Amino acid sequence: MGTVPQSDTRLCPAAGGPHKAGAECLLAEELTLQYPDIEVRWVAADLGTADGVKKTVQAAQELNGRDTAQRILIINNAGSLGDITKPFVDFTDPPEVDRYFTFNVSSALCLTSSLLKVFQGRAGLERLVVNVSSLAALQPFKSWTLYCTGKAARDMMFRVLAKEETDVRVLNYAPGPMNSAMQDQVQSHTADLEVRHHFIEMKKRGELLDCHVSARKMLDILEKDAFRSGEHVDFFD
Amino acid sequence: MGTVPQSDTRLCPAAGGPHKAGAECLLAEELTLQYPDIEVRWVAADLGTADGVKKTVQAAQELNGRDTAQRILIINNAGSLGDITKPFVDFTDPPEVDRYFTFNVSSALCLTSSLLKVFQGRAGLERLVVNVSSLAALQPFKSWTLYCTGKAARDMMFRVLAKEETDVRVLNYAPGPMNSAMQDQVQSHTADLEVRHHFIEMKKRGELLDCHVSARKMLDILEKDAFRSGEHVDFFD
Repeated sequence: MGTVPQSDTRLCPAAGGPHKAGAECLLAEELTLQYPDIEVRWVAADLGTADGVKKTVQAAQELNGRDTAQRILIINNAGSLGDITKPFVDFTDPPEVDRYFTFNVSSALCLTSSLLKVFQGRAGLERLVVNVSSLAALQPFKSWTLYCTGKAARDMMFRVLAKEETDVRVLNYAPGPMNSAMQDQVQSHTADLEVRHHFIEMKKRGELLDCHVSARKMLDILEKDAFRSGEHVDFFD
Repeated sequence: MGTVPQSDTRLCPAAGGPHKAGAECLLAEELTLQYPDIEVRWVAADLGTADGVKKTVQAAQELNGRDTAQRILIINNAGSLGDITKPFVDFTDPPEVDRYFTFNVSSALCLTSSLLKVFQGRAGLERLVVNVSSLAALQPFKSWTLYCTGKAARDMMFRVLAKEETDVRVLNYAPGPMNSAMQDQVQSHTADLEVRHHFIEMKKRGELLDCHVSARKMLDILEKDAFRSGEHVDFFD
């Protein structure tokens, strides 16, 4: 099965959160560079709300060309670090935690399922789902209670999807430590000094990844189609 | 470090959800059988609400004997299967998903952190936290989107706790397939017939575990103290 987005692919970019979605911009840019004929449709929506999810799904429904598209690529990239300034024991307010899961887990589930329903049932249409994951889905990091929990939840959620929908290709892709705004936040706000310094040192040594490089790697993985559906694949694998 | 609940232990049973908390009853029964002098304080609270979490924490704060207790054992057993009658692609309503995570993930985080705060800072006080986990935290099961996702989230959450709080012993315990009301629900409601029949056959072959046996195993693991803090230990390990 060829999985490279081509000129006749309709792309549904994962909508961003309340903040500017830098990684989505880079990804769209990378896709456009690699496949100049690709059509990118932007949707500005806050996926921390049910309305934002609905708005994004509606935009997908309105896409022309649903009858001609050969591949649908859904990339769940929207996400947030959560409060990394405090440890597990300082999360005592359920609504605060709920808000994190609404944006980072529930919206990814409901958006993906809704989009898969929009583009279902047509013979020959390939459907690919990417969950932008993290090493934090597999390993606990001090001060990152919500982030690790949310990423672990998402990985498992998409593994269930892969097991259920055998005609959908599902990739849990961990893009590696990228030189991004989120990484700046990690270095300035992580409560645990050991974790914080680890990333500060990586940056000093020039070991943080260029976002384009990681996005390209993800597209290569999809293109080669050499992953088991539902598998967690890291940039460094 | 001895970790067996003894006569001077104050137990904070994990409060139940909206429904009768059968497993908690059995666990309390098992503890009482094994350690007749143990004091069990019941709290009826709906952990699907912030008020329920607050009520449980208040009850813990009101416990007498906080100055004499040698060990605190917090068992996060409250949980639900979620809707297992439908696949991933039918979860399109964020509020439905949110409610699941509020009860199964957020409350476990906020209740545990609050209880750890109630019982902190006293020299010699041993604090143990158990997350009642599942094989579903490690392996995806068709039709169990929410259950698998929630259990994976909880395992990771408690691994972060273990990494952060080195003086707290944390156990992710998967009790195995028990002959319980939840198991009845699995056999009658799981949408995927393969998964459903797997458990129906287990029951027919008498392979479902007696809850007392599994609860006893958990207490043995705690007593032997032979687990790495944060480790996922299965009944069958």
